[in-house]
Parts: sequence; C-alpha cells; structure tokens
Amino acid sequence: MLGAEGKGLGGSGNGIEPVHVLPNLKAASVSFASPSADYPIVWRGPVKANVIRQFLEEVNWGDLDYLIIDAPPGTGDEPLSACQLIPGVSGAVIVTTPQDVAILDARKSVSFARQLKIPVIGIIENMSGFICPHCGKEVDLFKRGGGEKAARDMGVPFLGRIPFETELVDLADRGIPFVSSEQADSASSRAFKEICRKIEEFVSRRTECTSLKRC
Amino acid sequence: MLGAEGKGLGGSGNGIEPVHVLPNLKAASVSFASPSADYPIVWRGPVKANVIRQFLEEVNWGDLDYLIIDAPPGTGDEPLSACQLIPGVSGAVIVTTPQDVAILDARKSVSFARQLKIPVIGIIENMSGFICPHCGKEVDLFKRGGGEKAARDMGVPFLGRIPFETELVDLADRGIPFVSSEQADSASSRAFKEICRKIEEFVSRRTECTSLKRC
Repeated sequence: MLGAEGKGLGGSGNGIEPVHVLPNLKAASVSFASPSADYPIVWRGPVKANVIRQFLEEVNWGDLDYLIIDAPPGTGDEPLSACQLIPGVSGAVIVTTPQDVAILDARKSVSFARQLKIPVIGIIENMSGFICPHCGKEVDLFKRGGGEKAARDMGVPFLGRIPFETELVDLADRGIPFVSSEQADSASSRAFKEICRKIEEFVSRRTECTSLKRC
Repeated sequence: MLGAEGKGLGGSGNGIEPVHVLPNLKAASVSFASPSADYPIVWRGPVKANVIRQFLEEVNWGDLDYLIIDAPPGTGDEPLSACQLIPGVSGAVIVTTPQDVAILDARKSVSFARQLKIPVIGIIENMSGFICPHCGKEVDLFKRGGGEKAARDMGVPFLGRIPFETELVDLADRGIPFVSSEQADSASSRAFKEICRKIEEFVSRRTECTSLKRC
C-alpha cells in the first residue's frame, strides 16, 4: 500500500534505517526484512514483542511529529506489547466496518484501550456506503451507522465515515496514497482529511494538557 | 453470525458442553465464556495456545464429520497452535478478497501451511464482484481474479468465488446462516455449496488415501 515493496530496512552500527516512503513518511515493517513476498512470518508472541521493542528502540526515527502503529484487528499480543512498551501513548484510533459483527470487535477494542488506560481518540467507520459507478446511486454494502452508534454507546468520539471507493482499492494496490493522488478530492479523501484534522486536534490538546499537567 | 449470542458453554465434571447451534452444528468459542459482549480477551500467546488445547481436548464434541477451526487472518500463534495440536490435519482452506494487498497474505498462508506440512485444500475468493441492487449491473469492489491467479501461481486448487451480497451481511448480523435461509438460492449460496462440495471431495479422497496408506 505504501509502494515500498521490495525495499529493505537499512542498517549500520548506529541502528536500523527505516524506509523513506515520502519526504514526510518513514516506515518500518517486518515485511521489509522478509526474504520474499510469500514468506510467512511464523512467530509466537514473545518474538513478536521483541521485534516491536526493536522497532521502537533501534530504528533511527529521528524527530517525529507522529508515530503511528498499525495494529492487526483484535486485542492480541501486538497492540498489548506496543501499548506496554510506549509510556504515555497519545491515544487509540479504532477502525471498523459498520455491520454488527464488526462493531462487536470495535467495542472490545474500546474496552481494551480503557483497561490499558489509553485514551480513545475515536472510532472511524470505514467502507461506509458506496456509490455505484454505473448508476451513481448509493448502496450500503456493510449497512450504515454502526460505528457512530458504537461510539455513542461507549461514550467515545465518532471521527467520521469513509465511503467505499473502488479507485481506493486500486490505488492501494499500486502503492499510491490516495490522499496525494488524482483522487485527492474524492469523497473518501475529504472524509480522511477531516478525520485527520480531528485526530491532530485531539493529540495537540492532549499534549498541551500533559505539559500543563492539569488534564 | 451463528445466532448464538448470549449463549454460554455448559460444563460438568465430564468436560465442556459446546453450544448446539443447529441440529448438525456445535460450536465452542472464547466469546461464549465472556462476561459481556464488550469484554476484550487480552491474552498472550501461551494462554491462547492453552485454550485452543482445551477446546480440542475437553469439549464434548461427540462423533464429528468435520472439525472446522476458524482462524484469524495471518500466520500467528492461533493457527500455529491448532496445527501443532492436531496430528494429521486434513487440510487448510484459505479465504481472501481479490485485491493484491489481500492476495499477498493469502500467498503467505499457503507457504505457512506448507511449512507445517498441512495439505492446502484451496483458495476461496470472497467478496468477488457485486450486483448493484439499483441498476443490476456488476461492480468489482475489490477487483477480481486475484484469488484464482494466486492459486495458479502457488500450485494449489482454486475453490471458487463468492460474490458480495448485502443480504448476506444482514443475515450474518441476524445470526441466520445464509445457506439455510430464504437466500438459499442466491448466487453466493450456490457458490458456497459448490465450494463445500469440492472440500468434501478433497477430504474424503484424502481419508481414503490415508487409510490405504498409499498417497
């Protein structure tokens, strides 16, 4: 999705060099260290936790505005290790599709964050609605509104809904970030930017609070 | 999805009683032992492995035709534990959506099964094509053909494609198995039944081979 396939992590005595994806985006992933695209990473929890620690401690991230950890769905080893290794995580963003069976997992993730005392920045409803490219009418693929309802029920912010667009699937496969592409003014790009604005606001408010030590 | 929400696992000195979902379907899930629907299961690998072992050894499954383990995406602790605990797994079915980023994971799963010496029954392409309910025209939501191509490239059978139907999402949320519903003759139901037929064939052929000890 980052167009970084086939790139590898650099390394020297001074640490691991992340892959420079865009002028303002660096990334580290286990897949960058795999011998081939088909190679499965068959690791049990303790090894995973160790790699997460290495990515946090030994990668030359430099001066970052944001460190984003893209965790797999669920409440397993990976988010647990990441949350325990980083003191004072700014917050968790929970992404879900709108149907009930997905919402159940999103609610569990909110509880998970609370157990670990991590602020919940909010819930994003992804694949929410779809415009048929043939007739222009809207279809709710995975129903609609589940993310918003879950946010209300759990007392956390609702960050917005990102509609499904087939162009987005294609751009992801081609490794082109859709917000910086010719689709930059599409409905999903606009939704995405609005969501980012809310996240930035949450994080900067929280940073201010923490430095004043009164939130 | 099974309509078994709120049901719990029974237990006696003689083992754990599974939830009876349909006359021919019993199920055990960690969620049946959760205090509430929002309760997250925050377990590290070794605990997970132990629960998987308990589900295999201590649940009163009775005489089964098939034991199906629904594993999360990826090649993590859960499928690894299940595969190591069951000697002579009949095979692995790999489910993917058709776009490249998903196919990459499906290919890793094939390699994972091979590393563990588990036969790959085949790949299923899910959410493959969608009929717009407004205009009746077909849309490729997540592109098309990726599963078939991956199967060919990796030298494993392609079991079929299941089209996306919004009714299926709704039935899953209502806990109604779509193959036994009023949608039983829909395109996805037909695809599903054809796939099951192929899996049955594979498993019975393999059982025959094993009993003859010459495959």
